[in-house]
Amino acid sequence: MRWSSIVEVTPAPPVAPIAISMGDPAGIGPEVIAKAWAAREAAALPPFVAVGDTRAIARVWDGPIVEVRDLAGAMAAFPTALPVFTIEDGGEIVPGVPDLDGARCAFHSLELGVGLARSGAARALVTGPVSKAQLYAVGFIHPGQTEFVAERCGVSRENAVMMLAGPGLRVVPLTVHVALADVPLLLTRELIVAKARVTARGLQRQFGIAAPRLAFAGLNPHAGEDGALGREEIEVIAPAIAELVAEGIDARGPFSADTLFHARARAGYDAVLCPYHDQALVPLKTLYFDDGVNVTLGLPIVRTSPDHGTAFDIAGKDRADPTSTIAAIRMADALADHRDAEREGA
Amino acid sequence: MRWSSIVEVTPAPPVAPIAISMGDPAGIGPEVIAKAWAAREAAALPPFVAVGDTRAIARVWDGPIVEVRDLAGAMAAFPTALPVFTIEDGGEIVPGVPDLDGARCAFHSLELGVGLARSGAARALVTGPVSKAQLYAVGFIHPGQTEFVAERCGVSRENAVMMLAGPGLRVVPLTVHVALADVPLLLTRELIVAKARVTARGLQRQFGIAAPRLAFAGLNPHAGEDGALGREEIEVIAPAIAELVAEGIDARGPFSADTLFHARARAGYDAVLCPYHDQALVPLKTLYFDDGVNVTLGLPIVRTSPDHGTAFDIAGKDRADPTSTIAAIRMADALADHRDAEREGA
Repeated sequence: MRWSSIVEVTPAPPVAPIAISMGDPAGIGPEVIAKAWAAREAAALPPFVAVGDTRAIARVWDGPIVEVRDLAGAMAAFPTALPVFTIEDGGEIVPGVPDLDGARCAFHSLELGVGLARSGAARALVTGPVSKAQLYAVGFIHPGQTEFVAERCGVSRENAVMMLAGPGLRVVPLTVHVALADVPLLLTRELIVAKARVTARGLQRQFGIAAPRLAFAGLNPHAGEDGALGREEIEVIAPAIAELVAEGIDARGPFSADTLFHARARAGYDAVLCPYHDQALVPLKTLYFDDGVNVTLGLPIVRTSPDHGTAFDIAGKDRADPTSTIAAIRMADALADHRDAEREGA
Repeated sequence: MRWSSIVEVTPAPPVAPIAISMGDPAGIGPEVIAKAWAAREAAALPPFVAVGDTRAIARVWDGPIVEVRDLAGAMAAFPTALPVFTIEDGGEIVPGVPDLDGARCAFHSLELGVGLARSGAARALVTGPVSKAQLYAVGFIHPGQTEFVAERCGVSRENAVMMLAGPGLRVVPLTVHVALADVPLLLTRELIVAKARVTARGLQRQFGIAAPRLAFAGLNPHAGEDGALGREEIEVIAPAIAELVAEGIDARGPFSADTLFHARARAGYDAVLCPYHDQALVPLKTLYFDDGVNVTLGLPIVRTSPDHGTAFDIAGKDRADPTSTIAAIRMADALADHRDAEREGA
């Protein structure tokens, strides 16, 4: 089942499933995966296999489950039962009450999911929501799942780019989980150019957009108003854009952020690169709160994730909404198709 | 026609018009006012009078215009022609080509509009778009029209609060036209409390909301994540909220900005107060790019304005969209109704 030696010349056949790491077993991950399986026909979902603790799903869901030990078994089981590649880390699972056994299970589930995708046994990886605080307690040392996946893929953190995507908008925050006061210091020409290159390549290879149009938001109100409201646009962002344009990348801006996200503006680009977290996430979640998907660009594998957390407060109450997980599975499938088509064409 | 002596006990009768300062005569102000008048029946607009240069309208519009010298004349003319309280500052008017005569006209139009509203002769003031650069060249010394109007009303700048409103969202930026790097320094507990008080009172008096619910966005991603991504939420915003709650104001948060603006979240508050410009303006303009309205709270008069600039590049080309001006007139009318009802009740 390990295809790593041939994956560069022969793409994984479309019969391989997508692997979904379950995330923290006490969170809503198990429930949204089970609900996504239940919606597989209505949502036209490709085959997928959950990676995690079978008991976590059985605890919150009455549908059919099949424990599998290889991906061929998952493919065979998928039409009639939710296949689960089982990891057991002991301990009782209580929805809404995270513990260290559960954190270990989440950690191992992620590790195995990456391995399956990296080897080509799985077409793509969807990662369920984890609790970083819990993971840190069991030895996880990465800022988040994205950085972990990047390291396991041999990609530096700087070259793994987080994109949030909804049906009509893709955004890339150039800085992510940092205090707002630090953003002007962290926003360098090098950072912008590096992330934009990865974004442009990712849009080409995974989204099938031959000539991606990148729009840049300014850091300051009105994109600095010719320097009157801040000089980062003149000194940092515009030079980065010029460098990208010189490389043949269609990079535009910087634009005033408040004019960038209405429907007519969205028709004019394929992605917006934003200097900081809220500038990117606010419009995305304003428009697509339930069906936004987190995509990591710059990896040798396709990796998406639902755009929500563990939601321990509603775990086990049958209140979790699988919409974002379903969107993440569908997007992973589409991105894998584009990747496979590009590999075949290459 | 000066009712200032009795306005506190007897509200202006609903037969008074709304005054609309034309803004820069070379911008799109004249065109959007004329188009709003043409839409007066379809949009059920209350009577209004343009204040500015009649020639600027005649230059871009073929409809009926009546020059008036008092507001009774405007009321009589409104059903069959656009009434214009005429200010002429000499010079030829060329759409798209601003000059100093035009800037003087915009300045005087604003001054007269404020006077009409302040006296009670006009029910409310809508201000058309001006060019600050042009105004500065003719001796205007205020950062913008809002500060000018505040001063003419005897209100300090700090107590005139800019709110942007669309059909389903109201936002207040706590800092406005400043570099993003300066925001953490400018965001003080005192500032937040002062602006929130004005916002709460404005929602009561002008919007008729008895117990306004104010939501606060955090400054940092995830509202600082308990201090891990910045401490302003803990040290500045939360104490301000506590102070407001102690005064009986329904103040909530700080919340992660990216979770605050989707439809379900918007149902839970009457306004969001945001630490900086883009955090407030991005969601507002993402949702309501064409029909957002700028409202100034904290003034003794009702003042609104369309949420766009002079757009010199499209002036005189019959391409300007009057939607925001129509929305600004309608909102001014509604706010004046609430104010009058409150005065009658008081």
